Amino acid sequence: MINDLRLKKIYAKLKQENLDGLLLSSPANISYLTDYLSRDSYLVVSPKGNIYITDSRYIEEAKIQLKGRATIKRINGSLFKTIALACSELGLDRVGFEERYLAFAEYQKISGYLDKDITLVPTHSLVEQLRQIKDEEELKKIKKAVSITLKAFKFIQGFIAPGIKEIEVAAELERFIRYHGGRTSAFELIVASGPNAAYPHHITSGKRLQNHEPLLIDMGVDYAGYKSDLTRTFFLDKITPLVRKVYNTVKEAQERALRQIKPGVVVSKIDAAARQYIAQKGYGGFFGHNLGHGVGLETHEPPSISAKENNTVERGMVFTVEPGIYLPGRFGVRLEDMVLVTQRGASLISGVID
Amino acid sequence: MINDLRLKKIYAKLKQENLDGLLLSSPANISYLTDYLSRDSYLVVSPKGNIYITDSRYIEEAKIQLKGRATIKRINGSLFKTIALACSELGLDRVGFEERYLAFAEYQKISGYLDKDITLVPTHSLVEQLRQIKDEEELKKIKKAVSITLKAFKFIQGFIAPGIKEIEVAAELERFIRYHGGRTSAFELIVASGPNAAYPHHITSGKRLQNHEPLLIDMGVDYAGYKSDLTRTFFLDKITPLVRKVYNTVKEAQERALRQIKPGVVVSKIDAAARQYIAQKGYGGFFGHNLGHGVGLETHEPPSISAKENNTVERGMVFTVEPGIYLPGRFGVRLEDMVLVTQRGASLISGVID
Repeated sequence: MINDLRLKKIYAKLKQENLDGLLLSSPANISYLTDYLSRDSYLVVSPKGNIYITDSRYIEEAKIQLKGRATIKRINGSLFKTIALACSELGLDRVGFEERYLAFAEYQKISGYLDKDITLVPTHSLVEQLRQIKDEEELKKIKKAVSITLKAFKFIQGFIAPGIKEIEVAAELERFIRYHGGRTSAFELIVASGPNAAYPHHITSGKRLQNHEPLLIDMGVDYAGYKSDLTRTFFLDKITPLVRKVYNTVKEAQERALRQIKPGVVVSKIDAAARQYIAQKGYGGFFGHNLGHGVGLETHEPPSISAKENNTVERGMVFTVEPGIYLPGRFGVRLEDMVLVTQRGASLISGVID
Repeated sequence: MINDLRLKKIYAKLKQENLDGLLLSSPANISYLTDYLSRDSYLVVSPKGNIYITDSRYIEEAKIQLKGRATIKRINGSLFKTIALACSELGLDRVGFEERYLAFAEYQKISGYLDKDITLVPTHSLVEQLRQIKDEEELKKIKKAVSITLKAFKFIQGFIAPGIKEIEVAAELERFIRYHGGRTSAFELIVASGPNAAYPHHITSGKRLQNHEPLLIDMGVDYAGYKSDLTRTFFLDKITPLVRKVYNTVKEAQERALRQIKPGVVVSKIDAAARQYIAQKGYGGFFGHNLGHGVGLETHEPPSISAKENNTVERGMVFTVEPGIYLPGRFGVRLEDMVLVTQRGASLISGVID
């Protein structure tokens, strides 16, 4: 079903931008406006009508899912010609497109097929801006994805042991989430032990777990299109004083950041709370990535929780808080939780296993 | 390690196109030229030098993997400014970019930062053309990915039974491949039973398997960056005469297509062999997608095996042959195998379990 409320908000934005239609090519943005898990398709929306453009692999499914709300067009010959024709059929003059989700070649080809009196206009994050604030239906799905992930973390603690391979840990986690309501992983999950944990985006390998090494697991679940993204650092047996110090530093940095979160706060202040503490403890050069990112229909979506972000935090935003310290050749620690911004501050979505 | 032979071929192509450098943004194309699984990064190659542009998450890994062969630049502030600076540092004048893999906004931003005497020029499939012909190292990896997939199909026949959910079949397959050398799934695997199999790209669901229903499984494995992509249609207990007829039609269509394959044959002729047979049998309206696609570093890559493709088949190409018949509301059957084109014709990679 087309989501009428979301669509009305987009129509209002189009009016502000002096556009009479919008061509969508981001699967997540299309899914948001249609309440349907769109793949490999395009959508033209306008107050004059909505046209969904897809191919034979999805046509039967789209007919059912979008019945009576959008016209379904099957790609006939050229995809780009079909898109251009859709704009003509709707009688559009100024059509926005998503400048970050349309390739240079796609833009050129669609332009070539368009009637001369139709203008393509780049737009930036029109739908992404709306998506930053989650509604109740979305929160339910995100919380479910988080809850499955937390159960998986609990389960895996009974499985990990010296001698087991990183990839075997991944195998069991991937299996577990599908038996507990997840559709798939939200991304290629990271299982990194010992020195491998010093690479923030390590590729899960055949390395065997060892005692006294930290084990970093970064995983997410897709539930009904919505994602989770959490990281835990586990320990097998006793840990060294250095590992403990690094872990405690990351933990305290995360807590300091969490305490900064409330509606109206500038995002960079949250990042600074964690980053400055890590620097104070002498690890300033070992935390290179941003503090966090929004999560929803995409694992990484706005807002970016970075030192450069001057926007403010708003009620209904959902994002990660994930400081880390990575010591090349030695080990790494990252803690990643997801929060919902409420009137009172940060509500930790990933705090409780239900 | 930068792959010198592949890079030399690209330098020669650049010369032909009157370019002195190429900006790569396709992860698969970058991986091809560097023999390294690149993520979220950019590469500028030119006979004057190569610069790999990445962020803190990958910098330590990249330093090791690309040591002495490419200069590693960490993104400093703006990604697009860093790319523009890399072009200046190399002293380039005419820099090609990948028109299908650079977003409109990226093109605009990089252009804005570039020195005025540097020109960005769209290029189409320079690296993809090379990638169509697989070398021995690539074939080894593809064959390994296929072999793991075939083992998984064999394993799952002992698991499927009435009452088991589609998603549970996916869970066991995903687990199996990681215990047998696969890094991850090549794509979200499709387990579609009964009426669900009528959707070529069904989303694996909680539906339970039933006797007398076909069970379609479309899955692929990533082995060292290289993919497999195979589909099997299984049956639980006896099948109806209609299902048998459809299955036999798809099987014969696939065999007719396979017999057409040899170096020098026009691709559309292969597609036609399968498509015409399916039409003759009365199912012409129920096979909508292309007959196949290349497989390598990406699950879907050139060549496209379609009715529109007028290029010829060449030795060393690897692609799928995957006819299907989909009867909406009832069921679907697809058979997908992978072939290597040799001097003598199609060598079925997915024919034998090793």
